[in-house]
Amino acid sequence: MAKPGPMAKSESMAETVPTPPEIAVIGGGQLARMMQAPALALGMRLRVLAETADAPAAQVIGDHICGDYTDADTLRAAADGTAAITFDHEHVPGELLRTLAGQGYTLRPGPEALQFAQDKSRMRTKMDELGIPVPRYDVVTTPAELDAFASRSGGYPLMIKTARGGYDGKGVWTVNTSGEAEELFSMVASKPGAVLLAEERVNFRRELAVLIARRPSGASVTYPVVESIQSEGICTEVIAPAPGVTTTLADTADRMAVTIADALDVSGIMAVELFETTDGRLLVNELAMRPHNTGHWTIDGAQTSQFENHLRAVLDEPLGPTAPTSPVSVMVNVLGGRVQNLPGQRAAAWHAEPGARIHLYGKSVKPGRKLGHVTVCGEDAEHLRTRARRAAGILQDGYQTGAKQ
Amino acid sequence: MAKPGPMAKSESMAETVPTPPEIAVIGGGQLARMMQAPALALGMRLRVLAETADAPAAQVIGDHICGDYTDADTLRAAADGTAAITFDHEHVPGELLRTLAGQGYTLRPGPEALQFAQDKSRMRTKMDELGIPVPRYDVVTTPAELDAFASRSGGYPLMIKTARGGYDGKGVWTVNTSGEAEELFSMVASKPGAVLLAEERVNFRRELAVLIARRPSGASVTYPVVESIQSEGICTEVIAPAPGVTTTLADTADRMAVTIADALDVSGIMAVELFETTDGRLLVNELAMRPHNTGHWTIDGAQTSQFENHLRAVLDEPLGPTAPTSPVSVMVNVLGGRVQNLPGQRAAAWHAEPGARIHLYGKSVKPGRKLGHVTVCGEDAEHLRTRARRAAGILQDGYQTGAKQ
Repeated sequence: MAKPGPMAKSESMAETVPTPPEIAVIGGGQLARMMQAPALALGMRLRVLAETADAPAAQVIGDHICGDYTDADTLRAAADGTAAITFDHEHVPGELLRTLAGQGYTLRPGPEALQFAQDKSRMRTKMDELGIPVPRYDVVTTPAELDAFASRSGGYPLMIKTARGGYDGKGVWTVNTSGEAEELFSMVASKPGAVLLAEERVNFRRELAVLIARRPSGASVTYPVVESIQSEGICTEVIAPAPGVTTTLADTADRMAVTIADALDVSGIMAVELFETTDGRLLVNELAMRPHNTGHWTIDGAQTSQFENHLRAVLDEPLGPTAPTSPVSVMVNVLGGRVQNLPGQRAAAWHAEPGARIHLYGKSVKPGRKLGHVTVCGEDAEHLRTRARRAAGILQDGYQTGAKQ
Repeated sequence: MAKPGPMAKSESMAETVPTPPEIAVIGGGQLARMMQAPALALGMRLRVLAETADAPAAQVIGDHICGDYTDADTLRAAADGTAAITFDHEHVPGELLRTLAGQGYTLRPGPEALQFAQDKSRMRTKMDELGIPVPRYDVVTTPAELDAFASRSGGYPLMIKTARGGYDGKGVWTVNTSGEAEELFSMVASKPGAVLLAEERVNFRRELAVLIARRPSGASVTYPVVESIQSEGICTEVIAPAPGVTTTLADTADRMAVTIADALDVSGIMAVELFETTDGRLLVNELAMRPHNTGHWTIDGAQTSQFENHLRAVLDEPLGPTAPTSPVSVMVNVLGGRVQNLPGQRAAAWHAEPGARIHLYGKSVKPGRKLGHVTVCGEDAEHLRTRARRAAGILQDGYQTGAKQ
């Protein structure tokens, strides 16, 4: 109860508020956008280098620069005066990153780490060095080399991947015959500098992912291993934790993440995408050094979100606990579909699924484009998948029955 | 695994992104600031009328206007083109609110509801009408009237409160003798329009609070009853749910909140502050019609935060589930103390309490001013209080031992 106090006085806010150091985020997509919620809670300040003024992050972060992340002067303008530079994507050319680092800017992750997320060929070579299993692979420059790789690795079909620049199923092809290989080479290999990677087509049971947050000073935390369900090369669903993962398998995945993060001196979040093969092995498929689609569930389902731990790691502050806050979380992506006005569908989605945690990225609608995600937390993975899909489907393709709460 | 797809193409973001309707928030304090995290996740847009450009919400919400919320033109400028107007505080004069409503603006809550949060005298009269128990009270205009009230309500000490404008212990006095009453009257009653309320000094066991979110269309959800611990009239700690509350008491509190919200046609969040008397009754002490300090724990400890449910209610969209995500959450406020640079203390606070959920408001430091809060979620209330206080203490008054993670 109130004790004696002075009379009500209007509080002035005109005093100087100390401004905390800024973090530059290169890239203005949904990952940068989702960093803003923990940043504003924690009193961190972000400055974004976005592609356009209506990019997802530029809509919600006042301090943004619009420009080209492949331009050295633009990058420097974004970085100047910030405490550290981090990334929404891996597309900044390595030579520019090395130049920035050489000029004394603090990059987290740094260029030496990032190259392994930028180049699948270098990544696989590094995994070989570390004794971390990857699918059988080789760099191929001609159809004949591909044929040779096929004959020593179980024959066609094979996967062909561009070493650099692929994402969300782009830059990846299945090649079924020697003839298809010739066709693909004539299409792709003519691009200057294109390095092609041939890879065995792995017999896998499912795809898993493990996220690690690592501080520059070396401390790290890992999140529970999740199952990632892909459709047309795009991650569309994540089940956290992955159902039926044995302690042994979880420990192995966890150890792989720590080994890789330490060996590559990663700072910030790294996602390790894995194949669980039909014979029970784990092979590393991809590395991403930034918050990752397979970690979006952590916003609603873990004690500390990947976005918060990324920022904490970037500033070399202690990392938060990663334990789930409910037994199972399921995340389903909202892709571009029939709905043009996604915020207008929130009410219908909540009407159908009151527990749906909705996240919209403020992007214009294109078929198949990632526009948002829905997370549902609870007990039973299959039931949660149904519920999350229903809500995501309403946001994506509309609502039929017209009923209201 | 990736299936055949087109080559990597750079995605252009130049298409028009549909802009969702805006919500105007009057007041740029920490409550408006904390609305921004759910707003950006949900694809809602906020526009803030802040006192100054460095007000907590103005720092993180790009679309802000700086100006005086007691000026009709400024209010209209903030409101124009928005879907609804809501509030960070209750200080906008009622006549201005009624004018805005009369001009067709959508106020949530509306002026008819808000008057009961703005004026303690009207609120108590209304509670009497509704049969909701409040402490014995009367409006007093002279020391003689106060003496008369004292003699019919158990004598001194008594509480004196200004009917309007008090908060955080301001505008509240304990009066121990008839002589003190004269002194206070000479100081306060001379202010034009000041209405003074005399109130019995309630023998209470503790203070409780219940939060309700209500849609204009009438649906509502309540949060678990919490215990609120005050120091010098400022809420400093909240334990959620309140330890040892019987189902009967919880149901009573819950019913009171629903009855009041329905009768007053509240939209958005309403906090009902309660005394639990030593003889086991619940008395309404205060109403607030906005997100409230006793609900900050919901950001980290409930399935839907009070800030999210406030915005959902303001837009008349379905409300989210309010169940806790862990058995107990404890929130401790960070007040102005010896530390000037609070963000600089995060690392030390996390080093001491890795699970501390830190929230900083970006305010300049003044003794006793609310600058942030810490929430810790877990099992045991007393243990959590110790942990949350430790983290809040480090943010507030500094760190002694110098150890690092």
